[in-house]
Amino acid sequence: MNKSNLLALLLVIALFITTYKLVEMKNELKEVSQSATTKKEAVLSVIQSRKSVRNYTDKLVSKEDLNTIMRAGMAAPSGHDTRPWQFIAITDRGTMLELRKELEWARGLDGSPAAIVVCGDMSKVDKRNPEFWITDTSAATQNILLAIEAMGLGGVWSTLYPGDERMQHARKILNLPDHIMPMCVIPLGYPTGVEKAKDKYNADDIHWEKW
Amino acid sequence: MNKSNLLALLLVIALFITTYKLVEMKNELKEVSQSATTKKEAVLSVIQSRKSVRNYTDKLVSKEDLNTIMRAGMAAPSGHDTRPWQFIAITDRGTMLELRKELEWARGLDGSPAAIVVCGDMSKVDKRNPEFWITDTSAATQNILLAIEAMGLGGVWSTLYPGDERMQHARKILNLPDHIMPMCVIPLGYPTGVEKAKDKYNADDIHWEKW
Repeated sequence: MNKSNLLALLLVIALFITTYKLVEMKNELKEVSQSATTKKEAVLSVIQSRKSVRNYTDKLVSKEDLNTIMRAGMAAPSGHDTRPWQFIAITDRGTMLELRKELEWARGLDGSPAAIVVCGDMSKVDKRNPEFWITDTSAATQNILLAIEAMGLGGVWSTLYPGDERMQHARKILNLPDHIMPMCVIPLGYPTGVEKAKDKYNADDIHWEKW
Repeated sequence: MNKSNLLALLLVIALFITTYKLVEMKNELKEVSQSATTKKEAVLSVIQSRKSVRNYTDKLVSKEDLNTIMRAGMAAPSGHDTRPWQFIAITDRGTMLELRKELEWARGLDGSPAAIVVCGDMSKVDKRNPEFWITDTSAATQNILLAIEAMGLGGVWSTLYPGDERMQHARKILNLPDHIMPMCVIPLGYPTGVEKAKDKYNADDIHWEKW
């Protein structure tokens, strides 16, 4: 083999390698582009995939994740921007079971590794519209449920308000002062996967311009 | 130039081209990977970037987008899964201005290309807990506000409930039957960009285990 032939051989090998790499990278690019998602797609899909999750694995939820979830709650809008809420994160199973005792519907608490209680704070409300705590904490709760879903966790809105007995019970277990109104408890954890989202779209609920 | 040299030259050119393509694709891959976002990141960031937007450009909101937004509202949780809501999409400026007349706080309606009115439907509520329409439609409203933000639009929760006069006015303008409870009107459109999201995180609102 003379020098020229050797050079040609080496060049062919180099060309083969770069072409192979090129094909490989093209496939990778295709894959990344397909899994990439826009904010719009991600948010609309998480809104639709959110479901009430009452069955959890044993995996614990980190304090950091609980903090992120409560931060999402605080980003909700509120009337007169009063932000009339307080959040209690519970990881103690004993407290969750105590809460569960008088909450007929809060079945998620039976085995949840964590729970967040969303409360209204009547010391922060605007006196013109004290009832805004109800809609404001409901919006905060929905933010929390969507954050939970987006983080690969599952949770369920378990009602405390309205219901004097339920609220009184939660007050007692959690040492809530009188100006703190327990809105709901959200048991949460890593879902076992048994619950599936429902398609709740109903064209009859949509009206154009007027009723 | 003999044949061998010519071959070597061609191979060098081919090698140069493929290497160039390889570098180009590597940069593209890097860019796509960086702009790609996980569902978690996207949802948490939209929850934080949502803001009350009252200033809009002239660009119209399509019927398809309004439908997508109302679909997001219907994906909210509801007590006893009764889904006690109805939605009215308004694109007629006349109706918006009529609504605005007796709504002191609904400044967004002054120039919004569209609005969505979220209502409770008392014919669908569970008799054990009729008040759930309030928390359920609040959750639906928050879904709508997040969908709006994620779609590059802006909107603002403008209250109708609570407030007998506000609700009566909306009933009249929109021909609502007695069992339909107007919760809020959400003026929306493409934001001019003057409103910025606030960081509302407040560590004092977080409690661990008990109060």
